[in-house]
Order: sequence, then C-alpha cells, then structure tokens
Amino acid sequence: MKVRMKGFAEQTRVDDALKKYLKEVNIKSLQPEKIQILEALGRILAEDVKAEIDVPHFDRSAVDGYAVKSSDTFGASTTNPIIIDVIGVAEMGRVPAINVRKLQAVRVATGAPLPRGADSVVMFEYTEKISEEKIELYRPGTPGRNVSKRGEDIKKGEKVLKKGTFLQPQDIGILAAIGIVYIPVVRKPKVAILSTGNELIEPGKKISIGRTVDTNRFALSAAVKNAGGDPLDLGIAKDEVEKIKSKLSKGLALADLVLVSGGTSVGERDFVPEVVNSLGKPGIIVHGISMRPGKPTALAAVNGKPIILLPGYPVAAMMAFNTFVDPIMVRMLGTSLGRIRGQVIRARMTRRVPSSPGIRDFARVVVKKTDMGYIADPIRTRGAGIISSIVKANGLVVIPEEMEGVEEGDEVEVTLLRPLEE
Amino acid sequence: MKVRMKGFAEQTRVDDALKKYLKEVNIKSLQPEKIQILEALGRILAEDVKAEIDVPHFDRSAVDGYAVKSSDTFGASTTNPIIIDVIGVAEMGRVPAINVRKLQAVRVATGAPLPRGADSVVMFEYTEKISEEKIELYRPGTPGRNVSKRGEDIKKGEKVLKKGTFLQPQDIGILAAIGIVYIPVVRKPKVAILSTGNELIEPGKKISIGRTVDTNRFALSAAVKNAGGDPLDLGIAKDEVEKIKSKLSKGLALADLVLVSGGTSVGERDFVPEVVNSLGKPGIIVHGISMRPGKPTALAAVNGKPIILLPGYPVAAMMAFNTFVDPIMVRMLGTSLGRIRGQVIRARMTRRVPSSPGIRDFARVVVKKTDMGYIADPIRTRGAGIISSIVKANGLVVIPEEMEGVEEGDEVEVTLLRPLEE
Repeated sequence: MKVRMKGFAEQTRVDDALKKYLKEVNIKSLQPEKIQILEALGRILAEDVKAEIDVPHFDRSAVDGYAVKSSDTFGASTTNPIIIDVIGVAEMGRVPAINVRKLQAVRVATGAPLPRGADSVVMFEYTEKISEEKIELYRPGTPGRNVSKRGEDIKKGEKVLKKGTFLQPQDIGILAAIGIVYIPVVRKPKVAILSTGNELIEPGKKISIGRTVDTNRFALSAAVKNAGGDPLDLGIAKDEVEKIKSKLSKGLALADLVLVSGGTSVGERDFVPEVVNSLGKPGIIVHGISMRPGKPTALAAVNGKPIILLPGYPVAAMMAFNTFVDPIMVRMLGTSLGRIRGQVIRARMTRRVPSSPGIRDFARVVVKKTDMGYIADPIRTRGAGIISSIVKANGLVVIPEEMEGVEEGDEVEVTLLRPLEE
Repeated sequence: MKVRMKGFAEQTRVDDALKKYLKEVNIKSLQPEKIQILEALGRILAEDVKAEIDVPHFDRSAVDGYAVKSSDTFGASTTNPIIIDVIGVAEMGRVPAINVRKLQAVRVATGAPLPRGADSVVMFEYTEKISEEKIELYRPGTPGRNVSKRGEDIKKGEKVLKKGTFLQPQDIGILAAIGIVYIPVVRKPKVAILSTGNELIEPGKKISIGRTVDTNRFALSAAVKNAGGDPLDLGIAKDEVEKIKSKLSKGLALADLVLVSGGTSVGERDFVPEVVNSLGKPGIIVHGISMRPGKPTALAAVNGKPIILLPGYPVAAMMAFNTFVDPIMVRMLGTSLGRIRGQVIRARMTRRVPSSPGIRDFARVVVKKTDMGYIADPIRTRGAGIISSIVKANGLVVIPEEMEGVEEGDEVEVTLLRPLEE
C-alpha cells in the first residue's frame, strides 16, 4: 500500500462541504410511525394535526358564580343590589336541564356548562345570599362575561400543530385536549456507530502501554440520542480492510446512517476511505475539511445511504458530529436545526484566541456569569485529543474562516455544551 | 358541606410560598442507582468521579511523522536538511520494541506510543524520503514537540466529573475514556399524577355536552419526563372524597411526589384540600398563590412526602408545575435548576401587557427574530383555560410582583417554551 504522507492535498470549507454533500446525497425525511401521545415527548410530528372537535365543546362558565341573563343585571351595584331567584345548580359534566328565565339564576362552578337562557356569569364575590333561594347581585353582568364560548380555545378544523414540530409537554396536552391518542411521528433515524483502531480497547478492560480506551462510540451514541436518533453499536474494528468492510456493510444494511471514527486521515493505516469507496457509489464525496478540530472528516454515501467518517480524536469527532451529522439527522427527522442546537448566549472573551484564516475554529470556553454579564474564558489546551477540554468547557465559540481569531474583550456567541450553573 | 364562595382569604407570594414550603418539608436527594454509561445521558451523577488511570496511558505521538531525538534536529531547515536513518515503525496498540539512538528515527502514526529514546515527532510534511531507510528532515523538533505526554489529558486521581452533573454526550465519552462502565446516578423521582373532575373524560372517548377531555395528566406526564422524572398515571377521580382519597393514598404509597390537578380551589366541589389534610400531617402548607395563572395552587405534604395541588386549567397547571414542581424535582435529583429550565433570551415587547401589582404574571409571547434583534409579541388570550395559548406561544415573560406590567418597547427576558425556528 502506498504511504500517503503529505497531509490533505486540499481542504474544503465547512459550508461548501455540507452544500456539496447535500446536493449529491438527497437526505429525505424518514417515514412516519404512529405512537401513543404519552410516548411522544421529544419526537417530531410527521403531519399537521387538525382539531376534530371544538374546545371547549360547549359554552361554559369561566368562574364560580351565578349564571344569569345579563339584561336582568344592568345597573346592579352595592347601593342598588338586584334580587334574583336561584333555581338550581348546573352540574359538572352534565347537560343542564334547567332553563334560566327572567330574574332567575343557576349556580355554576368553573367549567360547568352554561344553562340555556343565561348569557353571563356573576362571580360569587359580587353576590350575597339572602335566603336559600334568593341572592343579591352587586355587579352587572355584560353579555358573554365570564363565559368561555364553545370553540374559544380551539375551533373544529383548526390546525393545532404543524408537521415538523419538536413535541413539548404543552403539545402533548393539546393533543389530548382535542381527543387524539395516537399521532404520526417521524421514525427515529437508526445510526450505526463503528470505532476503528488497533489501539482501542473497551472501557473496563485492563489497559496496557499503547492501548487507549474507545470513547467515541460512547460519546457518539449519546450524541445520536440527543439528536433524536436510535444508536446501533457496531463495536470496534481493527485497522484491517476486511474487518472494517464487514462491519460497515452490516451498518449499511441495518441503519439509516453510519458513523465511523478513526482511520479516516491520510496516514498509512487509514483504510476507512478506501473501504468506503469499495462498498458502492458515490463513496467519498468530500474528504478533508478546513475546520479545527475535525480536519480528517469525510462525507460519503453508498447507494444513497450516508456514511460519515469522523476523526479518531474525541473532540474532533464531537465537533464533526455537530457540524455534519446534526444537519443530516435534522433532515431525516424533517425538522429545523433548532431541534438539537444548544442554547446560545452572548459573552465577552477574557483572552485572545488566535485562528488561521480560511479555517473554522471551534474554541472551547468556560462561560461564567458576572455582574458585567457573561464572560467566556478559553480553555488553554486546544488539542483535538484532549477530551477533558470539552468536559471542563461549558461552551463553544465558533471562529469563522474570515477571522484571524477573537480578541480579548470581543463579544462572541457561545453555544452552551451544558446548562449554566446558577 | 359549607359553600365557600368568597375566594381565597389570603394569597401568598410565589417566593414566600416556596420558601415556607421548603422550610417545612425537607426535600432530599434520592438514593443513587448504578447504571451503564450508555444509558446515562440526561441522568444526574450521584457522586464525584475520579480517574483511576492516566489518559493517555503512555507518551504518544500527536501526529503522523517520525519520532526522533530532538537534539539531532537542531538547525534543520530546507537549506540545511538533516539526514536520519529510519529504523522501524511504532505499531499502534503495541509496546514499542525499538530504541531510538542518535540520528535514528521511528515512523509513528497519530496515537502510537513514542519509542524509548525519542522525545519529539517531526511531521511527515517536513520530511522527504531519500531511500527506503533514510529521510531528510527540514524542521527541528523541540523536546516534547508533537508528543502527548502520559496524563496530559487526565491525571490519575483527578476529579473528572462532579456530583450533580447533568450528563451530556461528552461526559459519557470521558467516563469511557477513564475506563468506567457503570456509574452511580440519582434515581429518577417517581411522580404520581391524578386528574380530578366529574366533567373529565379520557382522550379518544366520545365527547358530549358538559364533558372536557383531560389534558393535564398528559401534559404533566411529559413535563415530569422533561424534568428527569418517571411519571405514574393515577387516572381520573370523580369529585368525591372517597375516590380522591383512595387514588391519592395509592400515589403516596408508590411515588416520591404526587401531583393532583383540579378540585383545588375554594368552590363547593373542591374536595382535594380537605382530602389531603385528612391523609396525614402536615397536610396543606400553603394554599392560594399570588400568581396568574395558577392562583388555586396548594403546596402540601403527608408524612414528609410532597403533594402538589395544581389548578385544573391546563395553562395554570403548567405554570404552577414550572414554578413549584420543578424546584422540588431538582432537589430530589440533587442538582441545580439549570437542569430543566428553558433557554432564556432577551427580546423587546411589541405591546404593553398589564399586570396587577403584588401578583406574579406569566405572559405568553411569540418570539420572532428580526433585523433589530428578538421581539416578543404577547398572545392576546390570557385565560388560564386556553391551552392553545401555550402552544401558539413559544416563550414566557414573567412579570414580577412589583411591576404593573411591561411596556411596549421594554426589553424583557423570555424563557423559551420550544426551540426557535431558524
């Protein structure tokens, strides 16, 4: 095998790489599946949902009080109370049998159906009971006052939630409110994950000189779950063409997307690109990205199925995941990028971070709240192999290609890697 | 039963209510359980985790290149190349058998162990092969250059993650990196959820006049999951003392926290407070909160176990959940509030929203990105029963007790209810 020693002949900019890839590989939203609304939190709605009922389904009282004819109550005040006959109670959950006529009232609880004849509810607070069957009203009730009209919340036929919605608790609530129990959500992308490298061992196994515990399969599996996918573990492959080929073939057969980390650069044991090219067309589409960390990333597809080659270094693998795998999974889920992006805040840099022009740099920072707003303190270790750097950091600052770094005091956008401590 | 018609005798401010409650009820972190790291995403770490190994476990090359004695390479340049003998290759994952002596080099791949005798690695880019066994070096290698020292990333004995961490993908990665497979996380709080009301029916059942589909159990179940808990469905209880009592007793027996919605106000069918008081001490601790929506909320405990009485109206129930249940669950999880809070952004109000002094108001807004920054457009419907208002809204603006509203043009903090669309 030829020893390729000179690094990448060319590197593609992040945006160009993604654009080229998505033009060549048409990533479509996966098919829907029907699930129970109690299981639907965090899933992506596959179709618009319309209400098939009015909510509320009937005119109801919005308060505890007396349902009256508003025309009876004009001019009522503490100095001029109006005396009304209480003719009964509107039971919760029942069709009211009573009709309200002139100078009559029916006692209603919040949510009870408004009896026929009544058009307004006077709150208990503005009444005084003068006998078992008579009350004094101290306030007028205008038509519709304290009444929730049928369909006031949701009208039959109204679009309640739209396709692509990342379902939140309130969405699960509104689906129940319109009587829906099963909904179509986009199937979770199944994402096969392979680590390659002769040096890798499983966590928990005894470690010896030369060996490194595989971290990428674990971090990537969690990242896949975070992004709404379903990880499939392909294990570790040695740096051997046949072993890599067999595992990747399994991944292609079982998953919607395959991630492989390690062995993706241009060193003499970097077999993954040639294996991917041998599996089918188009193979590697872009290889070598002008990002740091993450340069050895390659974007590929075999017979329309995406394979993303991630660097072996854990930080580089995570950055490449965020940069390329997120947008692919978002498309498979038929939603917008908002689904999985971390919170973005503005902070001031405490120190300069240099960056080479033409390269997109991902600086790891520790964000702290101060009296003067948020500050972002860059982590001094910048190595792509230093996993502790993205655990100690709680944010990322993206330094775009056209900048030669960010200066001390610059206000920057920070994507949080974890919630800020209070 | 006495008809209590006059509303709440007094209302307690949100902060005072929570303070009083937490003083009386000592909410402790739940006991830990050991789980596999692949299952640990989003869980809360129950103990500090220390590394029991160095990462890397040995000095290794950070690049593809030649491992050399740096002292041999001083002064190397394109005009003054230094000729070195290549005496072998350091295999990935193996203890190197070769010793590097004066003017010798060993070929190394990124991550390979540094052979004894070498203290620096010169990248392939700065070398030229002149025969099978000789290369020219064009750059000097300083001591330690391109070498990742043993323990450079993580030192044995170092605290890697601290108790209370809300585990992210990178944390799962670092746990693998230090060889840990099982970790102690805080047990998920089991949260029993009951809806009460004669008018309530299950979603999917045929609806008739007077009936309302129960939404709270569904929205609250999802909110419990969002907050890191494990919901337990107690179903619907009719407005009857014995039925409510039996369901709540079951919830108290099986769960860490009980939520009951509906029947919590001071109307004649609001039996829940008296049932809770009958179940054990201290019973209701605070009832009637100066918040809108959410006034009929009550905070209670029975023999040390918290029961939170939420309003029946879905929006009020959600606001009371965020205000009181979140902080209780956060304490059970032994973490900070950051765990479950939504993203907060700053936006300008497009319209005035009035608020009564002394009341904490939760205004629902639609946040949009404009060229001038974010704007927050208040939803016109403010009713606590209007669930569509928290589905159409994507943010909440909290108007504190001391303010009489927010004005058009005011910059406010908005807690997002769902990710913003791009």
